[in-house]
Amino acid sequence: MSIDCDRLWQTIMESARIGTFGTGLARLALGDADRAMRDRFVGWCREAGLAVSIDAMGNIFARREGRRHDLPPVYVGSHLDSQQEGGRFDGVLGVLGGLEVIRALNDVGYVTRRPLVLVNWTNEEGARFPPPMLGSGVFAGAYDLEWAHAIRATDTGDRLDDELARIGYRGGAMTRPDAIDGYLELHIEQGPRLERAGAQIGVVTNAATVHGFRVGFTGETAHAGTRPMEQRRNALVAGARFGAMIDDVGQAFARDGGMATLARITATPNKAGILSNSCEVTGDVRHQIPARADAMAEAIDRAMERAARTARCEIDVRDRWHWGGAIFDEQLIGHVRHAAEEVGLAHMDIASQAGHDAYHLAKICPTAMIFVPCHDGITHHPAESITPEAARAGADVLLHAIISWADREA
Amino acid sequence: MSIDCDRLWQTIMESARIGTFGTGLARLALGDADRAMRDRFVGWCREAGLAVSIDAMGNIFARREGRRHDLPPVYVGSHLDSQQEGGRFDGVLGVLGGLEVIRALNDVGYVTRRPLVLVNWTNEEGARFPPPMLGSGVFAGAYDLEWAHAIRATDTGDRLDDELARIGYRGGAMTRPDAIDGYLELHIEQGPRLERAGAQIGVVTNAATVHGFRVGFTGETAHAGTRPMEQRRNALVAGARFGAMIDDVGQAFARDGGMATLARITATPNKAGILSNSCEVTGDVRHQIPARADAMAEAIDRAMERAARTARCEIDVRDRWHWGGAIFDEQLIGHVRHAAEEVGLAHMDIASQAGHDAYHLAKICPTAMIFVPCHDGITHHPAESITPEAARAGADVLLHAIISWADREA
Repeated sequence: MSIDCDRLWQTIMESARIGTFGTGLARLALGDADRAMRDRFVGWCREAGLAVSIDAMGNIFARREGRRHDLPPVYVGSHLDSQQEGGRFDGVLGVLGGLEVIRALNDVGYVTRRPLVLVNWTNEEGARFPPPMLGSGVFAGAYDLEWAHAIRATDTGDRLDDELARIGYRGGAMTRPDAIDGYLELHIEQGPRLERAGAQIGVVTNAATVHGFRVGFTGETAHAGTRPMEQRRNALVAGARFGAMIDDVGQAFARDGGMATLARITATPNKAGILSNSCEVTGDVRHQIPARADAMAEAIDRAMERAARTARCEIDVRDRWHWGGAIFDEQLIGHVRHAAEEVGLAHMDIASQAGHDAYHLAKICPTAMIFVPCHDGITHHPAESITPEAARAGADVLLHAIISWADREA
Repeated sequence: MSIDCDRLWQTIMESARIGTFGTGLARLALGDADRAMRDRFVGWCREAGLAVSIDAMGNIFARREGRRHDLPPVYVGSHLDSQQEGGRFDGVLGVLGGLEVIRALNDVGYVTRRPLVLVNWTNEEGARFPPPMLGSGVFAGAYDLEWAHAIRATDTGDRLDDELARIGYRGGAMTRPDAIDGYLELHIEQGPRLERAGAQIGVVTNAATVHGFRVGFTGETAHAGTRPMEQRRNALVAGARFGAMIDDVGQAFARDGGMATLARITATPNKAGILSNSCEVTGDVRHQIPARADAMAEAIDRAMERAARTARCEIDVRDRWHWGGAIFDEQLIGHVRHAAEEVGLAHMDIASQAGHDAYHLAKICPTAMIFVPCHDGITHHPAESITPEAARAGADVLLHAIISWADREA
């Protein structure tokens, strides 16, 4: 059994024509392009004989029965949404690679022992509805459904549940099965390490720890020309000072691979001639070593206090999120490593730096990830690129890992 | 001859009902509320027998003939636009106080020796179309008309000339008379000094020097979780660092009254999970002493270079503006001071800290300003407030200064 490289690549390229942005994608969660892609994906799933269901977060589940209907299913998937100016493979490879695995099984009429469920998780990117990995987060119990439904789009201001309903993907309930046998996610590396090492497959062993935050500062509007400096409560100054300090934290922890990102600043009125009375800053810190990530998060907490104090503003921490640090399942990792060897691909163990839906799943079931190299590590950018051969290699390892895992007796 | 306090206050309160925002105004330049206010103002001018004309910047001129049609006219005015969350008196008092002066002259059938022109200057606030004081700036030759027409609204992105046309206030040409005999502007102080000193009238002797800037930073989008710190080119980091430094410059010059304002930050994509590839920062520095203001501007130039270098971004200075420092006309100031004494009001000399259309006019004709106290110095805020008595006092001094200046023989 093996992957049809042409069919897989053709499917990925068909996805690349929905929400196209230059050589990349602008397919923000729950926008019109996301709806069009979901419709296409559901169509493909039905053509492949899968039973499709949608949950209250708009996550799409497509089930293929196993020889033993009574056993917990094996999940496989990723996400079809993109960044504002994103690439064609981030997330897409995992979902459509999973679809190609199903098609390969169908081609030869092979039925695995356990059922398989192919998943498209809603709003992995968080570009339009922060925080990221939201659909999988609610599914895994990390976030409350009502809280997630009330999140508003950064562009249109619409509520998430209203946008789900608008595009026709608001399911009735969160239907988490009693047990999930395992979760496998294929993804591009989003870094340059595999390519530089000449490896075709990354066996993901662990994940960076991430602490994210969305912080509001409240000050007072006043005339920019007459309010003395010592009386000013310019919330935008608090936000800018905090933003600069976020980057300082990143620089301070950069030596051993820490990263801190100032991702977003908004302010009101944010106009010439006037001081802003409110400002919101979104960002995160990341480190491979959980304790170092925690130390970065503490530095961020001190920074926001200092920024607010300097600008005489109040702080309101509106959101915090946390993921990663999860050690993937040793047994399932072993199946991935064995599959790479079986297919005859050069592989190496690797840690994940980006956020992935797999992190949430790792909390509720055995989980592992498969990485393939992407050119020069470029991602979240229209120039993101992989070879058809890399896509095939990843899907082949996914296929063999799924079969061996879903068929195991234990 | 004297001002009808009730009629003046009633007129100001009628203006306060157009574009109301809480107890203040949200009457941004060339928006629908600005159009409604302009229509009302033109109606009042015509009722007062004035000949109304509109120039290519949408400035409204309402002329009252003098005994000597051949002499250059005396201009009086201010602006009817407001900040996003502004007050009811900033600018409005000067225009409607000028209208009340005309009505007072009409009441007794008094015709001044020189013609009078009542003006509403377009987009004094610059809240929607930075920079501020744009209509008077183009009128006085500080800015190019085509450049001003191409400025885009910060909210809708529309061009200024298109918005002028949309609201019906795009006149055919810039019609600056060969000579202007003088310009008088009545305004609220926008600071607490008159109130604290118990003065009813501020005789404005000079103006703060202001250097404004709109600076773009260009970086590169990349994944927030995988791009190492030392390779990042996050334009939002450049903007935040620059913003913090603007405030630092203000703190460094605060001891002798300097002010630096971070007014606006915008970025793209400005989303969670991704580095921004572009960011724009708007702000200004102000000082009563021109040389100190220049030193502040130099510190800002160094700051933007440093911010860009730290974040590995390119700089693009998109706009610079400069005003103030003007010493108002000694002779016209003398007429204002004399008028205050004539009316019997407690007055004091005062320097202006905010920006005013008068600064541009001061470059082309003898110019002076009259200030009245506003409560607690609060301005650019819905809580901005003055008493009817303060409005009357200012308009009375304006009336007497206009008569003595417009009637003078020299």
